[in-house]
Amino acid sequence: MEDLPTKRMAHLPLAEATLLFPVRPSKIVCVGRNYREHAAELGNEVPAEPLIFFKPPSSLLSPAGNIRRPKIAARTDYEGELGLVIAKACHQIPAEEDVRPYILGYTCVNDFTARDLQTKDGQWWRAKGFDTFCPVGPLVTDEIDPSAGVTVETRVNGQVRQHGNTRDFIFSLDIIIRHISRAMTLVPGDLVATGTPEGVGPVVAGDVVEVSVEGVGTLRNPIVDE
Amino acid sequence: MEDLPTKRMAHLPLAEATLLFPVRPSKIVCVGRNYREHAAELGNEVPAEPLIFFKPPSSLLSPAGNIRRPKIAARTDYEGELGLVIAKACHQIPAEEDVRPYILGYTCVNDFTARDLQTKDGQWWRAKGFDTFCPVGPLVTDEIDPSAGVTVETRVNGQVRQHGNTRDFIFSLDIIIRHISRAMTLVPGDLVATGTPEGVGPVVAGDVVEVSVEGVGTLRNPIVDE
Repeated sequence: MEDLPTKRMAHLPLAEATLLFPVRPSKIVCVGRNYREHAAELGNEVPAEPLIFFKPPSSLLSPAGNIRRPKIAARTDYEGELGLVIAKACHQIPAEEDVRPYILGYTCVNDFTARDLQTKDGQWWRAKGFDTFCPVGPLVTDEIDPSAGVTVETRVNGQVRQHGNTRDFIFSLDIIIRHISRAMTLVPGDLVATGTPEGVGPVVAGDVVEVSVEGVGTLRNPIVDE
Repeated sequence: MEDLPTKRMAHLPLAEATLLFPVRPSKIVCVGRNYREHAAELGNEVPAEPLIFFKPPSSLLSPAGNIRRPKIAARTDYEGELGLVIAKACHQIPAEEDVRPYILGYTCVNDFTARDLQTKDGQWWRAKGFDTFCPVGPLVTDEIDPSAGVTVETRVNGQVRQHGNTRDFIFSLDIIIRHISRAMTLVPGDLVATGTPEGVGPVVAGDVVEVSVEGVGTLRNPIVDE
């Protein structure tokens, strides 16, 4: 975060501030198909273990930034999600150890997706990875407990399109973090996106997408053409 | 690179030094199936455009480090490759602009792969992404010209297993960099692995894998069980 003017920061009314994304993750690890009804709506099986993929750090976008629709994508979809940020390095967490101390806090994520390229490419590097395809923020720490159930809601131009609850996760945060850290070390600041509920759909230039997580806040990103 | 003691570095004979990986990329972008004979040996079609995927930064390994075979992987393969490192931010390079000024230099990469999980998972996040699955180094700058053809060779316990030449690329460096940067911004230090020639195969604990790129140097990584 060395290029942020932390030493010169003053208290500002929120309305006068431009929020940036709250972390600079070394990696963004996402879960696909973590809500039964969402798996069904795209015609997919419920997976036997978490389906994982990456978004690149170059896709990060601030909470009010413009999402740019690439010319080469025919259909671009919102996917509202709960995100979590890693507090300390974790690799192969022992079964008897609690995962919660590894979680710094929670945030909203829009796992924006070029749906046609997701099918065409096989690997989802660009379908999930174009610049601006990962709006993130704000970050809260101990204010919420997703295991008790928090709502995840997405609105397009003010209309509710997704209204899920983390109590309907197929895989809990505990299982997700253990599964990822079984393969690779999660380091402080890494971002984990926990999957989207049913109701995904396309947006076009001029639309405004809001993703809200109960107790966390709201992302509000206008869609523009590249 | 803030935790490396750059200010206290002295000249050392190479034989007394332990080389670390030469870059800390924000992302590692890899090309699959960029040699016709390698696509064929795994029963794959020659792709119409570059097949791209990511390895996470947590998979980086120094040029002499131990590659750890995960217990949950049945078959783990070496894949020797030419890598390139990005010099300056690039996004949607205009057709009339040369890509070469965006390349800082070249390196060796072992795109180590859990072959059974690559098939099982669909997305290659862990098949390509376990800790230690990305040995990288050393870095040279203007000493080689891959477009003129350099050899990429992999040896296991001293026996040659892969012996390819970058003149047999399906997609040139020019095409690869333009294709990636069409979707996402490449930033200084980002690593691009350019695909592996034919001859991939499994290794087990006790084997030693060397990857050499002509004019660049050699990676030498022992395989150990996790």
